[in-house]
Amino acid sequence: MIIVMSHQATPVQVDAVVEKIAELGLTPEVSKGEDRAVIGVIGGNAYAYREAFAHLGGIQEIVQITKPYKLASREWQPRDTVIDVGGVKIGGDEAVMMAGPCSVEGVEMLLETARHVASRGAQVLRGGAFKPRTSPYSFQGLGEEGLKMLAAARDETGLKVITEVVTPGDVELVACYADILQLGTRNMQNYALLQEAGRSGHPVMLKRGMSSTIEEWLLAAEYLLSQGNRNVMLCERGIRTFEPATRFTLDINAVPLVRELSHLPVIVDPSQGTGRWSLVSPLSLAAVAAGANGLIVEVHPHPDDALSDGAQSLDFATFDRLMADLKRLAGVLAAQAAHN
Amino acid sequence: MIIVMSHQATPVQVDAVVEKIAELGLTPEVSKGEDRAVIGVIGGNAYAYREAFAHLGGIQEIVQITKPYKLASREWQPRDTVIDVGGVKIGGDEAVMMAGPCSVEGVEMLLETARHVASRGAQVLRGGAFKPRTSPYSFQGLGEEGLKMLAAARDETGLKVITEVVTPGDVELVACYADILQLGTRNMQNYALLQEAGRSGHPVMLKRGMSSTIEEWLLAAEYLLSQGNRNVMLCERGIRTFEPATRFTLDINAVPLVRELSHLPVIVDPSQGTGRWSLVSPLSLAAVAAGANGLIVEVHPHPDDALSDGAQSLDFATFDRLMADLKRLAGVLAAQAAHN
Amino acid sequence: MIIVMSHQATPVQVDAVVEKIAELGLTPEVSKGEDRAVIGVIGGNAYAYREAFAHLGGIQEIVQITKPYKLASREWQPRDTVIDVGGVKIGGDEAVMMAGPCSVEGVEMLLETARHVASRGAQVLRGGAFKPRTSPYSFQGLGEEGLKMLAAARDETGLKVITEVVTPGDVELVACYADILQLGTRNMQNYALLQEAGRSGHPVMLKRGMSSTIEEWLLAAEYLLSQGNRNVMLCERGIRTFEPATRFTLDINAVPLVRELSHLPVIVDPSQGTGRWSLVSPLSLAAVAAGANGLIVEVHPHPDDALSDGAQSLDFATFDRLMADLKRLAGVLAAQAAHN
Amino acid sequence: MIIVMSHQATPVQVDAVVEKIAELGLTPEVSKGEDRAVIGVIGGNAYAYREAFAHLGGIQEIVQITKPYKLASREWQPRDTVIDVGGVKIGGDEAVMMAGPCSVEGVEMLLETARHVASRGAQVLRGGAFKPRTSPYSFQGLGEEGLKMLAAARDETGLKVITEVVTPGDVELVACYADILQLGTRNMQNYALLQEAGRSGHPVMLKRGMSSTIEEWLLAAEYLLSQGNRNVMLCERGIRTFEPATRFTLDINAVPLVRELSHLPVIVDPSQGTGRWSLVSPLSLAAVAAGANGLIVEVHPHPDDALSDGAQSLDFATFDRLMADLKRLAGVLAAQAAHN
Repeated sequence: MIIVMSHQATPVQVDAVVEKIAELGLTPEVSKGEDRAVIGVIGGNAYAYREAFAHLGGIQEIVQITKPYKLASREWQPRDTVIDVGGVKIGGDEAVMMAGPCSVEGVEMLLETARHVASRGAQVLRGGAFKPRTSPYSFQGLGEEGLKMLAAARDETGLKVITEVVTPGDVELVACYADILQLGTRNMQNYALLQEAGRSGHPVMLKRGMSSTIEEWLLAAEYLLSQGNRNVMLCERGIRTFEPATRFTLDINAVPLVRELSHLPVIVDPSQGTGRWSLVSPLSLAAVAAGANGLIVEVHPHPDDALSDGAQSLDFATFDRLMADLKRLAGVLAAQAAHN
Repeated sequence: MIIVMSHQATPVQVDAVVEKIAELGLTPEVSKGEDRAVIGVIGGNAYAYREAFAHLGGIQEIVQITKPYKLASREWQPRDTVIDVGGVKIGGDEAVMMAGPCSVEGVEMLLETARHVASRGAQVLRGGAFKPRTSPYSFQGLGEEGLKMLAAARDETGLKVITEVVTPGDVELVACYADILQLGTRNMQNYALLQEAGRSGHPVMLKRGMSSTIEEWLLAAEYLLSQGNRNVMLCERGIRTFEPATRFTLDINAVPLVRELSHLPVIVDPSQGTGRWSLVSPLSLAAVAAGANGLIVEVHPHPDDALSDGAQSLDFATFDRLMADLKRLAGVLAAQAAHN
Repeated sequence: MIIVMSHQATPVQVDAVVEKIAELGLTPEVSKGEDRAVIGVIGGNAYAYREAFAHLGGIQEIVQITKPYKLASREWQPRDTVIDVGGVKIGGDEAVMMAGPCSVEGVEMLLETARHVASRGAQVLRGGAFKPRTSPYSFQGLGEEGLKMLAAARDETGLKVITEVVTPGDVELVACYADILQLGTRNMQNYALLQEAGRSGHPVMLKRGMSSTIEEWLLAAEYLLSQGNRNVMLCERGIRTFEPATRFTLDINAVPLVRELSHLPVIVDPSQGTGRWSLVSPLSLAAVAAGANGLIVEVHPHPDDALSDGAQSLDFATFDRLMADLKRLAGVLAAQAAHN
Repeated sequence: MIIVMSHQATPVQVDAVVEKIAELGLTPEVSKGEDRAVIGVIGGNAYAYREAFAHLGGIQEIVQITKPYKLASREWQPRDTVIDVGGVKIGGDEAVMMAGPCSVEGVEMLLETARHVASRGAQVLRGGAFKPRTSPYSFQGLGEEGLKMLAAARDETGLKVITEVVTPGDVELVACYADILQLGTRNMQNYALLQEAGRSGHPVMLKRGMSSTIEEWLLAAEYLLSQGNRNVMLCERGIRTFEPATRFTLDINAVPLVRELSHLPVIVDPSQGTGRWSLVSPLSLAAVAAGANGLIVEVHPHPDDALSDGAQSLDFATFDRLMADLKRLAGVLAAQAAHN
């Protein structure tokens, strides 16, 4: 942490800051520039004490210089985390496809979808049983009934299952049925839920809060990691901006940037991220070209009959073309990795 | 709901939409304009079915025309909701001051603050016992210990108590000690928590999500109201924008606008909303001038020693000046109400 | 400027940075913390050279520690700037009202409005002759014809005139007719226009870019000031956020904050800032309560017939109530100033 | 346009709206739903008249249903626009690379860069001679001297030249030297400049305003097109969001979406869009995978010595790897086009 004094700060004010630093058990290091003093503060986690200086006189600014997350950082672990979900490797060389309906609506439709996406190369089945909905009057999901259907689809197809858990009390239940727990965008800072999911040790996919900075997202991952759960993957799913033409702005920048800052795998959700099915395929290709470790995509046999989010679901034919395009792209990326 | 057809839509496509509407038990009403058809869809909650049309051909746009919330709307209840919290009226003619430390750090400091703010006219004591913190390494609050201190401060000063609850399992516990349950910005869409707080019947202050639209905020209130809890007040606490100079952008526009759209009381939190103590007093005055029903302000006897958010806490002297200014402003507003 | 080295940076990398600093004629000052080196860079305008370090190895971050603007800063000029526009003082104790139609549509309507607002205490007449419009198919203003009408209204009523100039070639022309040149939100970073307006020496009101940070806004003011024009006032007019319910989010936080950072007067435009006439009065009161030096408000004798922005214009009766409310508020603020 | 009446609207209020519509020469069409009336307004450009209804009683909302731009829309011109810039086709099957330094700093460096990028397959040379800079104290470009250097580089290498024009008075001058006029993000709504560039008939690349919606961007293109200039390409260059980790958020969503809505070519600028050179290559690949018609990338022989924006410039070796990767990607996309 660095404390920048105002250029009108008096020597007495500088001394007061230095004293406070010492009082907190930290080490001050004063540099006097041409027009102001700057005080380095040395010591573990110094930034946590920044509030202690807020009302002292003569301070212009307090600057954080170390990342506030640790276990999630690439400084801490230089090599990529690869998560093994029952044989499916997430975070390795190959991008993983997670596909399925937005919500589990019934067993027939779920099985039909699962069989189809598995036949085209998807490795994980998605589908919501507990749905967080903006309106209390919307369909809220089938609950445990839905979880059982997902498990049945896994048994038949061999796909792994990812599904959302929305409250700490349900972590154990959902972990009985799902291979990966999904923490949704509205719950990225639901700390009780993060702690419970962290304690479970189960693989977790942490979606970015729709208005969370990358730093906050990695700090939320830190909650999971600091409970001893190392099976954490991240999911970019669109951020809230001023643009009304898409439901969210999928932040593709975040993909290579998070992979620079962190060792955790990054999955991208172009269905939620745009809210328009016609954009899902081009943005899936873009995400993988930018370095994503996987995709999570909504697919529905009859999108017009979907109980939620039909507007962003792919039908089977569009999904098939996407899988074919992704396969060709994978060839290019492999060549590139060999080359670079 | 209105379905706007593209100008290239064929008659067959228009018919398909009309058919779908009838199939859903709704009534279509087709208008043919100069260059395109527009189809009104009549029937309760038609918008909930919009997904059903997402993949039909020839549709340009689907427009929602009724507000998706009902119990929270002023159409539903034209007169202001006034909540009686043990004799303190929230939502009436007079703006209520809620003041106290960000976190409960210890009983001495809490009592000192409570006595002081009560002596200056505050009616509610704020203070966090369960703190949702961005970093897992920050102070997380004293938990039930803190709740007991708040109750002790109430007993001594007569102030009502507001404090945050962060997880559904704690609603009952917190309601034992607090007069008002606070639902924080990171939990505005924590639906399990909303439902539990709704069921409790206890007065609730629902903070706006930092990236929630006003419509989403009123829909979150609808979750509380639809559980039968009518003691709901709203709290504007700053939204996330591109501006880095303040921690958030306190959205004062929201105050008169929400009061137009809804009958629920609106409280403003200028401490969280700006993150800078020097802005708290001017923005408190601004909020009340714009029609806020109350303020919630962080006050600390020694802001430099605060364990959280000292940078945005007022010391006693600044708080006293603010209370004096607010008193004068109240006189003006009363004159104005009489006049208009 | 401070250069923060990564904790893996090698001594060779630190030396390369130190060397580069010296090469640029600046002075390096190295502090070695527990886990990383931090290098202060001392010398005038060091931050301008930050690009020179962007590709050197081992750097984690480069932090700016001085404000990039100078003439606009309160450090540079501690006392408030008061601009005298033909006897009307802007920036002094009293908030100034600028009122009039969005566009000048005709001489009758303009005179009717001017007479009315003058009779209620407004001191400046607003009205657009050159209108920047989002669509090429919208009404673009009357041009010089409109300027003449404004001048005629000034002659009759004694009001000063503020009107927008949109291109450098028109600065001279507009300055012939107007007492204050308005630079609009879409032109805040039109540097050719800023330079021309700066050179003119004429009073200028610089509106904040709808997505400009406060720092960028003060830097745009610096363009004007650095041409020798000291008659610069700022105008907050709403920023672009994710909230669709209002046209923009009027950033009232900016009022006290800019007055802390700068000595320049701050005017607020609640008409543009919200786009809804029903919000104009409450936000006008809020702005003045927060410390604004003036307001600029759209008033139209028959808002329903306005050629532009009727939705945000006040009719005469609403304007009259607003002026009465502002007068009462001014009394409070004067008492407060005396008291503090 | 559709006018939605409030559910409390009286028959008299509905009649007043209908009358107003007729008065404006438009055709009203009233539908009475279960709980409210909805009035369609039929007639060319009805939305331009929406202000006329703003103060009438009983209206809940006015909804626009046609796109406000016309010449830029794909409804107007279904086939892709392909612009021929002296033999270089922009908007066709192949993505075009525009590369070069941020600013023209001197003839040697420019020639060195031009030769290099040409040798790797770039077809257009970028470089700023007139630089719009946030601070008046930053390097503002070499002006006409810089234009001459660009022309010299074209003569030697055969590359076409793109460079920015910042004020209407310079359009003619810049058009003498440049093959494509660039209109920058800060000037997207500089209408005098748009009109002048439109009149010139010269190929124009219109960058998206950093806080402009896609609709506003296409309306700005409409200014150019409506002057008779059909040689318009668009450039996505990052939008302003709350995320501080990147300079802007490059909006890759906009690429496929604009190509759906419009026939104009879309170029992507990942250098400006992220402000970090390490993100330029992954986002270039992402942009092309999403359907971009070209890229504009900053390249500098010695990024550490760049006078502006060195942090986002590629060095030659990184550029070479990017060109090789893009070539492989082009193969995939061609296969895909054939396949789909």
